[in-house]
Amino acid sequence: MGLWDIDKIEYVGREKGPEEGLAFHYFDADKVVAGKKMKDWLRFGVAWWHTFDQQLVDPFGDGTAQRPWYGKYSDPMDEALAKVDYAFEFFQKLGVDYFCFHDRDIAPEGDTLRETNANLQRVVDKIEENMKSTGVKLLWNTSSLFTNPRFVSGAATSPYADIYAYAAGQLKNSLDIAKQLGAENYVFWGGREGYENLWVTDMTREQEHMAKFFHMCVDYAKQIGLDAQFLIEPKAKEPTTFQYDFDAATTMNFLRTYGLENDFKLNLEGNHANLATHTYQHEIRTAVDAGMLGSLDANQGDKLIGWDLDEFPTDITETVSVMWEVLRAGQIGPHGGLNFDAKPRRTSFTWQDLFRSHIAGMDAFAAGLIVADKMHQDKYIENLWENRYASFSEGIGATVEDGTATLESLNDYAIDIPQKDLLAATKSDHLESVKATINNFMIDALANA
Amino acid sequence: MGLWDIDKIEYVGREKGPEEGLAFHYFDADKVVAGKKMKDWLRFGVAWWHTFDQQLVDPFGDGTAQRPWYGKYSDPMDEALAKVDYAFEFFQKLGVDYFCFHDRDIAPEGDTLRETNANLQRVVDKIEENMKSTGVKLLWNTSSLFTNPRFVSGAATSPYADIYAYAAGQLKNSLDIAKQLGAENYVFWGGREGYENLWVTDMTREQEHMAKFFHMCVDYAKQIGLDAQFLIEPKAKEPTTFQYDFDAATTMNFLRTYGLENDFKLNLEGNHANLATHTYQHEIRTAVDAGMLGSLDANQGDKLIGWDLDEFPTDITETVSVMWEVLRAGQIGPHGGLNFDAKPRRTSFTWQDLFRSHIAGMDAFAAGLIVADKMHQDKYIENLWENRYASFSEGIGATVEDGTATLESLNDYAIDIPQKDLLAATKSDHLESVKATINNFMIDALANA
Amino acid sequence: MGLWDIDKIEYVGREKGPEEGLAFHYFDADKVVAGKKMKDWLRFGVAWWHTFDQQLVDPFGDGTAQRPWYGKYSDPMDEALAKVDYAFEFFQKLGVDYFCFHDRDIAPEGDTLRETNANLQRVVDKIEENMKSTGVKLLWNTSSLFTNPRFVSGAATSPYADIYAYAAGQLKNSLDIAKQLGAENYVFWGGREGYENLWVTDMTREQEHMAKFFHMCVDYAKQIGLDAQFLIEPKAKEPTTFQYDFDAATTMNFLRTYGLENDFKLNLEGNHANLATHTYQHEIRTAVDAGMLGSLDANQGDKLIGWDLDEFPTDITETVSVMWEVLRAGQIGPHGGLNFDAKPRRTSFTWQDLFRSHIAGMDAFAAGLIVADKMHQDKYIENLWENRYASFSEGIGATVEDGTATLESLNDYAIDIPQKDLLAATKSDHLESVKATINNFMIDALANA
Amino acid sequence: MGLWDIDKIEYVGREKGPEEGLAFHYFDADKVVAGKKMKDWLRFGVAWWHTFDQQLVDPFGDGTAQRPWYGKYSDPMDEALAKVDYAFEFFQKLGVDYFCFHDRDIAPEGDTLRETNANLQRVVDKIEENMKSTGVKLLWNTSSLFTNPRFVSGAATSPYADIYAYAAGQLKNSLDIAKQLGAENYVFWGGREGYENLWVTDMTREQEHMAKFFHMCVDYAKQIGLDAQFLIEPKAKEPTTFQYDFDAATTMNFLRTYGLENDFKLNLEGNHANLATHTYQHEIRTAVDAGMLGSLDANQGDKLIGWDLDEFPTDITETVSVMWEVLRAGQIGPHGGLNFDAKPRRTSFTWQDLFRSHIAGMDAFAAGLIVADKMHQDKYIENLWENRYASFSEGIGATVEDGTATLESLNDYAIDIPQKDLLAATKSDHLESVKATINNFMIDALANA
Repeated sequence: MGLWDIDKIEYVGREKGPEEGLAFHYFDADKVVAGKKMKDWLRFGVAWWHTFDQQLVDPFGDGTAQRPWYGKYSDPMDEALAKVDYAFEFFQKLGVDYFCFHDRDIAPEGDTLRETNANLQRVVDKIEENMKSTGVKLLWNTSSLFTNPRFVSGAATSPYADIYAYAAGQLKNSLDIAKQLGAENYVFWGGREGYENLWVTDMTREQEHMAKFFHMCVDYAKQIGLDAQFLIEPKAKEPTTFQYDFDAATTMNFLRTYGLENDFKLNLEGNHANLATHTYQHEIRTAVDAGMLGSLDANQGDKLIGWDLDEFPTDITETVSVMWEVLRAGQIGPHGGLNFDAKPRRTSFTWQDLFRSHIAGMDAFAAGLIVADKMHQDKYIENLWENRYASFSEGIGATVEDGTATLESLNDYAIDIPQKDLLAATKSDHLESVKATINNFMIDALANA
Repeated sequence: MGLWDIDKIEYVGREKGPEEGLAFHYFDADKVVAGKKMKDWLRFGVAWWHTFDQQLVDPFGDGTAQRPWYGKYSDPMDEALAKVDYAFEFFQKLGVDYFCFHDRDIAPEGDTLRETNANLQRVVDKIEENMKSTGVKLLWNTSSLFTNPRFVSGAATSPYADIYAYAAGQLKNSLDIAKQLGAENYVFWGGREGYENLWVTDMTREQEHMAKFFHMCVDYAKQIGLDAQFLIEPKAKEPTTFQYDFDAATTMNFLRTYGLENDFKLNLEGNHANLATHTYQHEIRTAVDAGMLGSLDANQGDKLIGWDLDEFPTDITETVSVMWEVLRAGQIGPHGGLNFDAKPRRTSFTWQDLFRSHIAGMDAFAAGLIVADKMHQDKYIENLWENRYASFSEGIGATVEDGTATLESLNDYAIDIPQKDLLAATKSDHLESVKATINNFMIDALANA
Repeated sequence: MGLWDIDKIEYVGREKGPEEGLAFHYFDADKVVAGKKMKDWLRFGVAWWHTFDQQLVDPFGDGTAQRPWYGKYSDPMDEALAKVDYAFEFFQKLGVDYFCFHDRDIAPEGDTLRETNANLQRVVDKIEENMKSTGVKLLWNTSSLFTNPRFVSGAATSPYADIYAYAAGQLKNSLDIAKQLGAENYVFWGGREGYENLWVTDMTREQEHMAKFFHMCVDYAKQIGLDAQFLIEPKAKEPTTFQYDFDAATTMNFLRTYGLENDFKLNLEGNHANLATHTYQHEIRTAVDAGMLGSLDANQGDKLIGWDLDEFPTDITETVSVMWEVLRAGQIGPHGGLNFDAKPRRTSFTWQDLFRSHIAGMDAFAAGLIVADKMHQDKYIENLWENRYASFSEGIGATVEDGTATLESLNDYAIDIPQKDLLAATKSDHLESVKATINNFMIDALANA
Repeated sequence: MGLWDIDKIEYVGREKGPEEGLAFHYFDADKVVAGKKMKDWLRFGVAWWHTFDQQLVDPFGDGTAQRPWYGKYSDPMDEALAKVDYAFEFFQKLGVDYFCFHDRDIAPEGDTLRETNANLQRVVDKIEENMKSTGVKLLWNTSSLFTNPRFVSGAATSPYADIYAYAAGQLKNSLDIAKQLGAENYVFWGGREGYENLWVTDMTREQEHMAKFFHMCVDYAKQIGLDAQFLIEPKAKEPTTFQYDFDAATTMNFLRTYGLENDFKLNLEGNHANLATHTYQHEIRTAVDAGMLGSLDANQGDKLIGWDLDEFPTDITETVSVMWEVLRAGQIGPHGGLNFDAKPRRTSFTWQDLFRSHIAGMDAFAAGLIVADKMHQDKYIENLWENRYASFSEGIGATVEDGTATLESLNDYAIDIPQKDLLAATKSDHLESVKATINNFMIDALANA
């Protein structure tokens, strides 16, 4: 059977009944939806850290994970190299075409950055070979600038220049790896770039350092001919009290402030959206409309819980909204995909749960795609918008959009309209029917899937 | 067409496509599900205050509602009486069998409680006639002990004895009305029974007053032969900082403390559950398992928003969970139903939106019933529980349940078990597959509905 | 005594003991602190809507307020004019030099905008007279584009062009009034500029309309020679699900996107900061560092409560943080002040509570000023920052700040540093001592006040 | 200097200025306040797990802590024994009289419970010797039934009987240790006693198992003559989605349901209160009024953050409220104290920060005690309550309290009272003055401290 004692996961549709847990009910990779194969809309990526490194700890408990390689290797480098084989077989049995990793996910640190880079290079070379032999591609890589204690006060925002320099060196190496492996994107998640306590923090000096850091990365990428799209991943808080990339809008404000808006796009995550009190759909819409959507981290939170859960996505209502925005945009960013930044729950600790949880997530997004496609086909929302804003396409409204209106011209128009006519100009949104209709689309589209 | 310019709402199923907003897609009143007609599982009630009184204000905006009786009546009593006709035609055109009201919803106040009672009696008598002629029944009535400024510091917990006495007089009248109209339940929502500021509040003295108030109500009900089930409706906060009936568990603790646990059950609401950071399912389970479920207020909140929204329920995932608990319990309390404590959004301001929003809510619950029934038929969760707790049905586990185990007997059993055997005793919950399976049940059951 | 049966509020210091509620314990208007009189640092403004219009309603209760003019006037215009006298006597007895108002606070609407403007003009003229005779100034005025049902779906973002035109006309009039009364600032709070439901919302079309609206306002102000500073007041949500001016950073992103960043600054509020999950200090710091602080709405929320409370500020820890940021900035914006966007609690319903609550707020800010001044005098935080970031003022850190560093130069610097030396480069923040020290500053400075 | 290179921490008062971080500004152990020495009101306990075991990890970062024993011991038992010496010197240099620990804090596990118990016994014996020689006492001990992977699905609520039996054996040993060391209390924190997912959980079967577990503990304690007070520590959620001991009221409801209310009291924590959306004062008041306060875990959260921070308490406003409730109750439970369930921030990583953070916490509580005492001396709140509820001490109000009132008697009293008289019966709470007055008490009392 190979390293994982399981067959390739197959699409079985809805025939086998609801309880079949090791097969796809909705994800049918080569099925064409909205003009593209499902697998091309949904460029799923496996997150190395959660799937191959995560031990399922929580702040009050040790790891529960059971993995086939546990106990086999005493040398961390041997384990790191062996996990490459496990990883690529996992990708193929699951049927995903992409993966993502942090530098520190795949190889242990040495005593200096030079030694660490050497460890890393051995694993990267093995990954490169596997990519060639399997055709699996790198959606993005990134640097861990948050786990090691040296980054306790930040990396690109550390108050300590040696730490900043170290982070820069680490980034250089990561960009070299992105180049070597043909990464489609390169992600920055600033887990320590923010503050624990505002009193001790010179917020502007830190953000200026961070901007310079990003500019250096842009410069170096140009120098080495790296064409991966740079992405910032917003998160509101945790582990810090406030992260400088709080949400999509805050991050765009930072990029615009420092002249970085043409070099970066956004990698958005559902659970992170919730921590900023937003829906995932809101964050995606915000980025799409600004031309800033880069890629998606596919996971979900629990909206009644105040910390990051990184659950596998199973809320179909939410995946419908995500895929509706993606279909509207035409794609997930120029080179984006759906990276499962998600881990099985701590009570889903067997290695089979790694397959089960990815299947659940892939099916949820496939179902979302099917429903969103049906909504777009029927132009349900498109028509609704057209009607709702129709008064701006002609008459006085058109003078607003074409820039000829002034306060005075509008005042002249409005000053003698009686109150009842103003009220009559406003239409009901029938919001309850809208919500019910989206439910109806969901059931109808999936009933026929 | 009558007072409302609309035909009776019909069941059309899924045939007319997702966008049909003035017909039922799932609610088919007489269809038998799980051994009972849909309308008997789902004893829907219209909430008088939201549907006939609510002007769709919010803290920053005046009312937007458009209602057919607006502008027709100058005398509030004339309007109050006319609205009875509107209400009963609404119930019949919508096809609901129950309604609910506060005393102050249906008639204006006079200068004294005696005058107020007289106003109220005229409307109650007209309601009684309509109930007889239509067969529509009173799910519950209640007293508004929170709107009038006299209740600013509470009613049964007011620090001012005159206010307390007034509230008691008002309750006496409400119980007399419950008796006259054959109410199936009588609800207490303590919107002012809590505190704005803990420093100025003698919490225990207030709760003792509240307990005495409840005991007087129990005594008076016995005296007049009222057999309506008494219900308390928990809410965490809003308008107060803390309400004494914070959630189901807090309310039960209060009832047990003051010897009221046999005289009261709970009326639970989805949005109120969220304000206490609970799911609706959690609150229902808590009450069902304690034998304390009385009735349900059917609405939903937005879990990313911190105040009470009273949205019409449209989240099918949530209605599945509610109806699964109800099917498990066999009923909604002894005499309960599903009162729509819900209002259309402020932008859904036409009178048609009153129908649209109820249809959305009724369909969401009908869909939830259909899915939950399928889950129970397949014993999906039942089997899962049986397997999960199997070790307590025999051997050492059985000694725990039959009460023969002691710390010493269990210590003797466990003291030499190796760690690996303990880990092997624990099974994975495959939680991601469980969530995906519930999605599958939802689609499969509704595809066939 | 005048219209309000009370003497001018006096400063008594701490001598009369803690329970004296109708005198200032800390606010001593002419006392010089940090080189300016207290009243010049703390340009307090009374908010007309809360103090003279607010009836102390909440979503579940009618107004409890008792005001000296209640019941005296049957004609709304008579009452509106009379309230001007009450207002200016109130300002003087309290000793505040500024006030703020919405257009709709001060005069009733007519059937058309023209009629409404006429009503308004009569009151504005009376206000102008009173300003001249008393010396009290207008901190800012604003337009209510949210209360009237016509604005149910927005004003500058309404999908209905007639409503947009009406809002523009209303703004024109408000800017004329600002000019007439010499307003120091003009505020935009977009209470309806956002969405209730994202599905029905074309977010970008709405924001483009809003941007055009702001540009028209800028143009008109130039045209009439109005030099009031334009301010946007961010709020995360409520009444909407999401407001386009979510927080300081989101608002600045909007301004930069549409080329408005040089024409607008921010009016920040404590309770609004909390609704975005930020501290007030965070929002102020963000604006100050961007050169965007305009003015402050002085109030507080309850961080465990999810809706807008508009409490009078009494948390001295928070006012210390606010005034520390203000002292660091040198002022509250170019023309800003401290507008009490705050209302007494619903149980503080007497007219005396209007004085009591303002006194509480003014004392809290005066105390905050005294403590913050002591902290700045001792350069406590200044020194802490200087030490914390010292490594960027020389050596490798200086190459980062002067722009000569590259990933390669930093990599060369860092690549052979052993891990233990990197850890040694990082210093402890002693955060617990920092918090205790700020407490110590608070007690010591106020003990000597 | 001993094992810690620091002198005994001294009380210096406010003389040395606000920045002195290694001395007490308010805590003066032998100073008499409200009839008892400070150290007798404030029976501080050091939490072994945070102070001697915590490595300052977070979900995204490895440990940053620097401790004097790191790197000295290769055998975990040697380190465990050595840490006893570090601990007792720490207690004495800090001047605290109590400590608390989990069984697993102090000794490593073996392969079976028997081996683990043997490891533990060696350390317990050494602790016993140190207690005798120093006079430091055990405020409470507890069992870790949450960290080891075997408890992933609970301990007393595990679905797996072997795990339950193991937990029972572990408890037996912990109670034997409590007896040996003369523990004043014994604490149960059910970190895994709740659910991750409600669908897979038979909540009632789990709670019945938990109740039986507690009854076995009560029985065993009687059998061995252990007179430590049993305490349950509520927490709303984290690591679970819902914990059965959500808050004080929920826990009391559980205890009453299963007949355990006379055998258990509550150990309440500030940060846990916030996670249930309560203030710390609320939880303490709830317990005190029910006669259920056992002990306090002294820490604080950040009310804008949704996870458990375990910050050292530095918010004096909060410690005033806590100590006011304690002074009112006369003590912290029958045998309670103030256990610092708190850890320095991850950027406060030096060993000196362990002293600094405890000093900050001890000073905050000492300040709270001083202020609360002044408030009680002046009977500020006592008088306020007496006036507020005066109408229940005579007349119609007294008939409510003495049980002679009925709905009918109260109706007769109230039915003809005009509305205006009812409004006049209600008094303003002047809440803004109350908050300002409490601030005044804080400054005045500490200025004179």
